[in-house]
Amino acid sequence: MQFFVQSSLHYQVSGPSTLLCSLKCVKTPSQEVLNESLSTSRDTYRSDMSLGLEENRFTLFETSEAGPLSIFYEATASTSVQTVPFAEINNQDVHTLDPAVIPYLFPSRYAPADRMRAVANDHFGGIQGHLDQALAIEDWLNKHIAYAPGSSKEQYSAMETYENRSGVCRDFAHLGIALCRALSIPARYVTVYAFQLQPQDFHAVFEVYVGGRWYLIDGTRIAPLNGMIRIAQGRDAADAAVATLFGNIAGTGIEVNTLVGKDETEVFQPLNRADLRNAGNALCLG
Amino acid sequence: MQFFVQSSLHYQVSGPSTLLCSLKCVKTPSQEVLNESLSTSRDTYRSDMSLGLEENRFTLFETSEAGPLSIFYEATASTSVQTVPFAEINNQDVHTLDPAVIPYLFPSRYAPADRMRAVANDHFGGIQGHLDQALAIEDWLNKHIAYAPGSSKEQYSAMETYENRSGVCRDFAHLGIALCRALSIPARYVTVYAFQLQPQDFHAVFEVYVGGRWYLIDGTRIAPLNGMIRIAQGRDAADAAVATLFGNIAGTGIEVNTLVGKDETEVFQPLNRADLRNAGNALCLG
Amino acid sequence: MQFFVQSSLHYQVSGPSTLLCSLKCVKTPSQEVLNESLSTSRDTYRSDMSLGLEENRFTLFETSEAGPLSIFYEATASTSVQTVPFAEINNQDVHTLDPAVIPYLFPSRYAPADRMRAVANDHFGGIQGHLDQALAIEDWLNKHIAYAPGSSKEQYSAMETYENRSGVCRDFAHLGIALCRALSIPARYVTVYAFQLQPQDFHAVFEVYVGGRWYLIDGTRIAPLNGMIRIAQGRDAADAAVATLFGNIAGTGIEVNTLVGKDETEVFQPLNRADLRNAGNALCLG
Amino acid sequence: MQFFVQSSLHYQVSGPSTLLCSLKCVKTPSQEVLNESLSTSRDTYRSDMSLGLEENRFTLFETSEAGPLSIFYEATASTSVQTVPFAEINNQDVHTLDPAVIPYLFPSRYAPADRMRAVANDHFGGIQGHLDQALAIEDWLNKHIAYAPGSSKEQYSAMETYENRSGVCRDFAHLGIALCRALSIPARYVTVYAFQLQPQDFHAVFEVYVGGRWYLIDGTRIAPLNGMIRIAQGRDAADAAVATLFGNIAGTGIEVNTLVGKDETEVFQPLNRADLRNAGNALCLG
Repeated sequence: MQFFVQSSLHYQVSGPSTLLCSLKCVKTPSQEVLNESLSTSRDTYRSDMSLGLEENRFTLFETSEAGPLSIFYEATASTSVQTVPFAEINNQDVHTLDPAVIPYLFPSRYAPADRMRAVANDHFGGIQGHLDQALAIEDWLNKHIAYAPGSSKEQYSAMETYENRSGVCRDFAHLGIALCRALSIPARYVTVYAFQLQPQDFHAVFEVYVGGRWYLIDGTRIAPLNGMIRIAQGRDAADAAVATLFGNIAGTGIEVNTLVGKDETEVFQPLNRADLRNAGNALCLG
Repeated sequence: MQFFVQSSLHYQVSGPSTLLCSLKCVKTPSQEVLNESLSTSRDTYRSDMSLGLEENRFTLFETSEAGPLSIFYEATASTSVQTVPFAEINNQDVHTLDPAVIPYLFPSRYAPADRMRAVANDHFGGIQGHLDQALAIEDWLNKHIAYAPGSSKEQYSAMETYENRSGVCRDFAHLGIALCRALSIPARYVTVYAFQLQPQDFHAVFEVYVGGRWYLIDGTRIAPLNGMIRIAQGRDAADAAVATLFGNIAGTGIEVNTLVGKDETEVFQPLNRADLRNAGNALCLG
Repeated sequence: MQFFVQSSLHYQVSGPSTLLCSLKCVKTPSQEVLNESLSTSRDTYRSDMSLGLEENRFTLFETSEAGPLSIFYEATASTSVQTVPFAEINNQDVHTLDPAVIPYLFPSRYAPADRMRAVANDHFGGIQGHLDQALAIEDWLNKHIAYAPGSSKEQYSAMETYENRSGVCRDFAHLGIALCRALSIPARYVTVYAFQLQPQDFHAVFEVYVGGRWYLIDGTRIAPLNGMIRIAQGRDAADAAVATLFGNIAGTGIEVNTLVGKDETEVFQPLNRADLRNAGNALCLG
Repeated sequence: MQFFVQSSLHYQVSGPSTLLCSLKCVKTPSQEVLNESLSTSRDTYRSDMSLGLEENRFTLFETSEAGPLSIFYEATASTSVQTVPFAEINNQDVHTLDPAVIPYLFPSRYAPADRMRAVANDHFGGIQGHLDQALAIEDWLNKHIAYAPGSSKEQYSAMETYENRSGVCRDFAHLGIALCRALSIPARYVTVYAFQLQPQDFHAVFEVYVGGRWYLIDGTRIAPLNGMIRIAQGRDAADAAVATLFGNIAGTGIEVNTLVGKDETEVFQPLNRADLRNAGNALCLG
């Protein structure tokens, strides 16, 4: 399915500043970027780079000229999801994991799994099977965490979200990741453009690695699971922040838009967790 | 300089267990591993692998047989340090950094730099130059943090060490790393074998990236800076733990030994911070 | 000086609820309550009571009837402040303190002094004299903590305010209290009506006990120090919350007003810290 | 039943110091102190005082002479416990509580109930009746928290104990108190001498207020519930610490002994939770 995505980030610069952005759709075997452009409202130094364990596509901007600065991105990406029958998804012991996956068992800044072992076992220790545990975590997040913009702080980790029982997509993902890792399930943070997300914004979800594939989990359930276009993945938001600021620069606004690509002829059929469950499937994101 | 290192890790296994170890000396342009062996007290599944941003050399063991299990490592490594005159070390703006270094600016599990900006600025914001800031941080750690085995917990981050003003090498390194990153200085955690460390144990230090090179910093000052043999590096101890345990296994003991290599003819001349300062130099570890 | 104060608290009740309020002006040797009334928008069970170490004047309301509920208070209080020359204020060792004051040295929920000893000593350990330390803490709060409504959470303690460097009056007071206690200066939390506070709201400040008297400290410096009418005092906001809710009840709004009493003939001459300093005085609240 | 208790606290003084101790058995309607003595190994300034909401019996010592200092206490106390049939213990709404009890609903330093509402409801929200909730909390503590001397830190609150699932009597009590308060059950911290506690030490338990009386709860279950001699009670350990130190003084040791009083003719019949449950009773401490 082809999607057309647009995002704009707006800043006020008041001195020498560096801005590190993760806006571009990643290129994967199941996600093709057909065309894209990244531009700025005025000339800045710019450098495209790959960063981190997953070679996410970052762009760094540098300017010392005061005044407003905007970054504009748009792309057409073709993405395909894969549904896998539950019966084909088997648990995997740690020693059989692909080494590339093992760092996703380690605790990280916003997903301190080492501090959540007891809590993870209280809630999910009695469930058999890694995928079933991850799906139970998604259910639990959806039921017990209030989706409430403004209720959380950027420095909150999964601990605070567990305590406060509220947050935004980032917080849902961090808590889910920490709980999964505490149960020895590799889990990673994913930022996406999300079709039919209302209101439009960047979205964060997570993936768990079971039986050789990464499955998509989203405790917020605020967007169809098959309408997401992957931007970046990492251990948590520290690896995949949309923007990281250095120097004298402050954000003033953001706009995101996700549409069906203009050459797309297929009609989008939203797949939510209930649809997948009814069909006995889990979903892998492109 | 050639060193001979030995380490043994002892465990009690009581059910299916996986043990992920980082014991081997890494291979770098300035650290050659001349020979090494890694063995176990009894047969286990074993897999050697590279993990993480820096391709550290991990070994994974798996066993389901109850009883004691020991891991034995020994190696001869040839390592050379480099001293660089202060005058040749220049600050580097974020936008000129090698992309491989940028993740070491991000907050991590045990070095939550995003929570320490105010504190870092209180203490070190008035100092000019990244290297001078890092050296001032080393001084401050040495003066204000008590080296006190047993005073800290494995889940402590830099925040707790800053609050409690005590810890072990791991805690000194995490606090130093968090403070450096809060000042936009890339910093990474390094585990080493340390010659003349008393009593012998694994040691943890950190490195800061300034002007194109990584410089060694050690707030504990309990071992010469030029007698360290690098095992692994990463964002913090989550990336470079000596051992990570999964399943029914518990540690029962550890032994470490670091000697001059038996073919070494040179006499080891310890270099401490005071020696380096007197000579107007900073030091890069092999 | 006579002041006329008014406050209204508005709630939505959706089931059996208890509301514990601290709205009334306390009666002290230097604060007389000339007249007052406390009423509700509809009939509820009501009980007036004294609570806590300082016998604050609380009112408890109970209702099980759903719908809006408002509490209205108004009072005329006559309050006098006392200015004391610095030269007459002497340090006091712990063993000479009035026992009633000693609990104000203990750590409390929002002022965990036991966790802030190192930080308090870093910043203020070099200053001689308890009053000078307290005034330096007020200066530091005023300079380093941003007064920013919405920046803090109700569950934040002094630790989070120290980390985040922003907050509201409650946060300024908690951080100041924790720092003082960490230096062995008794400190207590005080809620007040504050004349010339813009916009009008309840205000929180703190007091330090030096040389036999409690001196007023307010790191926010958003209202004159001599225009405050005392409502309650305690170890921290847990003891002196304006309202504590039990059951199915949620706040919907608040209004506060502080005026000069209508029989008052004296013109209010605001005293701020700078005025007091120039005159060489500290101030005791009525 | 008469008990004879002894305790000694040993310190090394290295400069002007104040020591605030809570060692004496309190006097209550059901606990009589028949005789007692408190002495020191050398002359110091000494002041006996009542502190806090419950008028605990503290003694303050002051000395500026360096060297060892020991405090010795011994007393004979006669204490009687009361057993109350479950059927007679009724829930009590907040608005019917004795005002003296209300502060034990507020969050405190080591029992931050405001941060544990979600967790308390997860585990115990489905249980009817305050006493049944408190007994379920005792069961849960006993089953899920490991009694492990050295596993906790003095600055740990109930949050850390919930996370770490280990601690000492103080930690069990703080977690129990926080959970009870989060469920609107008044709960207070109690320090005691405990007969048949092995090894002998000071002990900490908690009490919950239900239907007009305080009932004893002890998640550690390491001593009979009817062999405790009350020393002090308060919101948490901040109110009832055995010793609080100011100045240049460090603890070097402690000894405690609890025996049957020498004129006692009755044989002690230990009552544990299981005995009480079998008899359908809860227990009030003297």
